[in-house]
Amino acid sequence: WARAVRGLLLDVSGVLYDSGADGGVPIAGSAEAVRRIKASGLKLQLCTNETQATREDFVRKLRALGFDVSVAEVTAPAPAACRLLKERGLRPHLLVHDDLIPEFAEVDKTNPNCVVLGDAAENFTYANLNEAFRLLIGMEKPVLISLGKGRYYKETDGLKLDVGAYMKALEYACDVQAEVVGKPAKTFFESALAELGVPPEQAIMIGDDIVSDVGGAQQCGMRALQVRTGKYRPSDENHPEVKPDAYVNNLAEAVDIILQHL
Amino acid sequence: WARAVRGLLLDVSGVLYDSGADGGVPIAGSAEAVRRIKASGLKLQLCTNETQATREDFVRKLRALGFDVSVAEVTAPAPAACRLLKERGLRPHLLVHDDLIPEFAEVDKTNPNCVVLGDAAENFTYANLNEAFRLLIGMEKPVLISLGKGRYYKETDGLKLDVGAYMKALEYACDVQAEVVGKPAKTFFESALAELGVPPEQAIMIGDDIVSDVGGAQQCGMRALQVRTGKYRPSDENHPEVKPDAYVNNLAEAVDIILQHL
Repeated sequence: WARAVRGLLLDVSGVLYDSGADGGVPIAGSAEAVRRIKASGLKLQLCTNETQATREDFVRKLRALGFDVSVAEVTAPAPAACRLLKERGLRPHLLVHDDLIPEFAEVDKTNPNCVVLGDAAENFTYANLNEAFRLLIGMEKPVLISLGKGRYYKETDGLKLDVGAYMKALEYACDVQAEVVGKPAKTFFESALAELGVPPEQAIMIGDDIVSDVGGAQQCGMRALQVRTGKYRPSDENHPEVKPDAYVNNLAEAVDIILQHL
Repeated sequence: WARAVRGLLLDVSGVLYDSGADGGVPIAGSAEAVRRIKASGLKLQLCTNETQATREDFVRKLRALGFDVSVAEVTAPAPAACRLLKERGLRPHLLVHDDLIPEFAEVDKTNPNCVVLGDAAENFTYANLNEAFRLLIGMEKPVLISLGKGRYYKETDGLKLDVGAYMKALEYACDVQAEVVGKPAKTFFESALAELGVPPEQAIMIGDDIVSDVGGAQQCGMRALQVRTGKYRPSDENHPEVKPDAYVNNLAEAVDIILQHL
């Protein structure tokens, strides 16, 4: 699986670092692994469903944790959602993290005709969920756009419900199907590959989520590895539908093997 | 549809009254309709998914609103769940409304091996949902018991997400299927009919929820009416799967017609 690679897509939370209210903790060897990827001449793009911060703040945090990355190297759902909203003339009601709101600064949000759902974390209050629900159920044709459909993720203080769980709640209550922007949507991986500048058969995705990262990337014709860090659980190795091209203990091990085959 | 009736099952919220933080408002004619049912010799049982209060408090509230009903006339999910927990030796973690907790007083809640989910309302916080999720995902075989699967209900200050939406969130996050106690579960309607003391073909269910009330009752061999009060919406009349035996404008109209056919 490690041959003929020209570029890597990396998931971030659970691969580079474990996120948390304390700002997060780098995963051992990952910062060095990112440096080695760049030194090798391989292309690198971060492909994240992170929706708790703007790309600028996100990169600032990663740099503070020791990762040599730039804003141009981040593919994230909010900018993709903004493109979709503009194309379709949609005016969103946002149920997202406070720190993500600047990504939507240029978007008309008056008189909403859709709801955009992100990982709102503490903003997932009973009142805010009811408000989003009422707006949706009051639309002639409810449009729900979800920035990802992850089930849960791991922070330093434990597992947290991810945006996908709240998406399912609203889908059920309104009898609609959300449009997912972010992993594992095919269009999202295609955007990341375009920014990487490498065709799918020469790229490898490395992530901790068996469905969003591994399954999504494989459906785009890429190889995909699951790391045994972050939200990885041993039962993932018996997943009924998704089988990674390989398991690796962590990003550093994946990079070791890939660099040996260059 | 109004012939050969010996007993009525009535949904409560949206049929007898519109609930709300202010205690709720009776629906015009409903208190009088309950009196006329009783005076006619028809049997009556309230069949509710109410999980925001003990039956005692619930009946106290209904009596204060002018309804002549007793605790024995209420079939509700929490007592049914307690029976199920005892039969199966399950120890619940409760994510329910504070006012429902006394219904579980006799149940061992130490070292939980299942989660019981009710309409927790303000207790549906981000922290409480994460806590229930973590307990479930940490179980070898997660057991989620949901007191109903309603999508939403109407209070005097607007529509609210019901327990079913939060059930779907936890089902998705944990990849489990909840066991539903309450409408539309067949066993729940069968309990209500047993308490009514009337076979299904001689009973009519009257409710405002096309799926939980009407669909559930019909699957037990009962006739079922949808009232155009409470959460009723005109689009319910085009429901792809469920067709009531009749629509009535409200409970009073249903009782008028039924009494004419005695």
